[in-house]
Amino acid sequence: MDKILSTSDTVSQADLSLFSEYATQYKNELLQNILPFWVDKSKDEKNGGYFTCLDRAGNVYDTDKFIWLQGREVWCFSFMYNNVAQNEHWLDMALHGAGFLQKYGRDENGDWYFSLTADGKPLVQPYNIFSDCFATMAFAALDKAVPSDVHKKIALNTFENIIRRQHNWKGTYNKAYPNTRNLKNFALPMILCNLSLELEHIIGKERVDSFIPTVIHEVMEVFYQPQLGLILENVYEDGSFCDSYEGRLMNPGHTIEAMWFIMDLGNRLQDEALINKACTIMLNTLEYGWDKEYGGIFYFLDVKNKPLQQLEWDQKLWWVHVEALVALAKGYAYTKDERCLEWFKKIHDYTWAHFKDTEHDEWFGYLNRRGEVLLDLKGGKWKGCFHVPRGLYQVWKTFEKL
Amino acid sequence: MDKILSTSDTVSQADLSLFSEYATQYKNELLQNILPFWVDKSKDEKNGGYFTCLDRAGNVYDTDKFIWLQGREVWCFSFMYNNVAQNEHWLDMALHGAGFLQKYGRDENGDWYFSLTADGKPLVQPYNIFSDCFATMAFAALDKAVPSDVHKKIALNTFENIIRRQHNWKGTYNKAYPNTRNLKNFALPMILCNLSLELEHIIGKERVDSFIPTVIHEVMEVFYQPQLGLILENVYEDGSFCDSYEGRLMNPGHTIEAMWFIMDLGNRLQDEALINKACTIMLNTLEYGWDKEYGGIFYFLDVKNKPLQQLEWDQKLWWVHVEALVALAKGYAYTKDERCLEWFKKIHDYTWAHFKDTEHDEWFGYLNRRGEVLLDLKGGKWKGCFHVPRGLYQVWKTFEKL
Repeated sequence: MDKILSTSDTVSQADLSLFSEYATQYKNELLQNILPFWVDKSKDEKNGGYFTCLDRAGNVYDTDKFIWLQGREVWCFSFMYNNVAQNEHWLDMALHGAGFLQKYGRDENGDWYFSLTADGKPLVQPYNIFSDCFATMAFAALDKAVPSDVHKKIALNTFENIIRRQHNWKGTYNKAYPNTRNLKNFALPMILCNLSLELEHIIGKERVDSFIPTVIHEVMEVFYQPQLGLILENVYEDGSFCDSYEGRLMNPGHTIEAMWFIMDLGNRLQDEALINKACTIMLNTLEYGWDKEYGGIFYFLDVKNKPLQQLEWDQKLWWVHVEALVALAKGYAYTKDERCLEWFKKIHDYTWAHFKDTEHDEWFGYLNRRGEVLLDLKGGKWKGCFHVPRGLYQVWKTFEKL
Repeated sequence: MDKILSTSDTVSQADLSLFSEYATQYKNELLQNILPFWVDKSKDEKNGGYFTCLDRAGNVYDTDKFIWLQGREVWCFSFMYNNVAQNEHWLDMALHGAGFLQKYGRDENGDWYFSLTADGKPLVQPYNIFSDCFATMAFAALDKAVPSDVHKKIALNTFENIIRRQHNWKGTYNKAYPNTRNLKNFALPMILCNLSLELEHIIGKERVDSFIPTVIHEVMEVFYQPQLGLILENVYEDGSFCDSYEGRLMNPGHTIEAMWFIMDLGNRLQDEALINKACTIMLNTLEYGWDKEYGGIFYFLDVKNKPLQQLEWDQKLWWVHVEALVALAKGYAYTKDERCLEWFKKIHDYTWAHFKDTEHDEWFGYLNRRGEVLLDLKGGKWKGCFHVPRGLYQVWKTFEKL
């Protein structure tokens, strides 16, 4: 991240001091609150793997194991071991989860289940490829910490399986009738590119580079709608707008998360125009997605302002706000656009005031429109050891370099 | 409904006058607001069938056609024609929807799709049997209005298809891994029994009577949990409690709706103990499901008070409140339990204050926990011409007979 390293002369001493405060705050939260919470609370000593359904105080309220979250936690502890410190507790956590995944996570085709019982019996079938994506990330990151043919092989085989299944990724579980309305979803190109980056030490720079032009084209030209200045979740195969519930759907958090991936790709390619375009789309999305009445970023919006089918559309979710903080920190670091810093301060204030639990460890995940706690869990079926620690790390490191 | 016809001596003149006011209010709302709204706004003159995605003012905001709602609207207009008045507009509406369903609704196996485009092209596959259930109801009710071998055959063939598929009703779309955690859902026995009643003029009393003992046993002994006094959505096949997200789930509206079906069955069987038990469970469920802070009935609850996976758990939905009004009116009519009348008044006040739109026709469907409008649609993917008109009819007729 060359550009981040060069501090602009136009940055004031007050700003530099603020960046240093932010770096310390995010670092301390990661190292003193979030990671210890998951080390202490989520390890299933009896069966292996992690409990992720943890209540406000960190007690287990449900013992089912969701492969997304098992994989993400292995990835997270491996990543922290690789990038922050060679802390043996973190490596032990990563290996603990990986062992469980390796033993119980796959069916006879090598497809990863969606969920398992506490002791590893399959509960929900491999009905799409997202479990596989997080398993790939897990074993690739672990392989950087502890190089091993076994880790490499699981990561690589799963990756090739994802590539093979990508055009029919719901398989027999796809409910869409063929060819009436062929929509494509924005998640897939993003995930493939991101995965390839995680595997770069295994598959090599050349193969990673072969994925990049496609994802940039798809996200920035096909899913991006210039007349709206926004990215849609689903478009026709030719990129045109589909006036249906799915076609009108906008997920601000998803766009914002994608834009920091794209900015990082722009940095890798030394493509300033790409960074600037991604930064602009991210800022447009925040303007559009910010709740002007109660604050916070909406979960879903309809770009034609029609009623949505998502009843949770107006809720404020942790990952959306965490990803926005990362995107804004990076956007500022790459472009020095003051709007990024202003928005960062606004989202930072909202996030720390509403998502951080001041009485117990870790952060809340689900707030209602007014920013009141809707569910006081610290982990569940979808919230685990992933967005908060990854986001805290990214913000810490970005401000530390400014 | 013999019992309803006998007015108890203990009912005061003030109560009788109130019942008469309620009867008039519910009748007028049905005949002057709700049914005209759907006649005026939902008919697709060009393609046949109905638009159900209607905004606050009744304008079409999405043209997809959902088989649940197509079938329910055919049923509703047929039912009103059969039970309220031989209004030719209603019969025309019913035939209009039935023609579209007959032409486009089924795949080559006779299974009913989940949704179609405006002009009848299949969009979403027949991924469970609920579309089939509402199609059966539609053609059975229409056959009472306009007896026809075609209507009878569609109703009967679909019914037999449902019976055949009932133990594997998600077919290949079932994501559950076999035999790890075999849960059964409370919806199925209720629906089969209710369907058989709709078909009584076609399949005969004897066959209908053969369904009744099973549904009563399943609902009142298997899904009912005596130690809680509540009915669960999902239990193990032997009726025992499963401590998982699915097993802990309670849906107050679903229980309350089932309890008025059961009270009607109790009346058919002249089984006073069954009526009393259903009425008690209904009252327990209201006590449990009522939001003591903001009013209204919660959408979902966890019986162990754990965090739910349903982010919409605290919302207030129209159908829950409408079904509660029906259950309370019938509960009072059958048992004269004063608690039914007190609860009726409370839910009546909440419903008319929050769900009825005083500026436009029809009722809102989705409120947040505070009772504020969350989505201002009058119809959508799940809300159509069904619960409100059926509920208004049932309450009207129940109070009219008191």
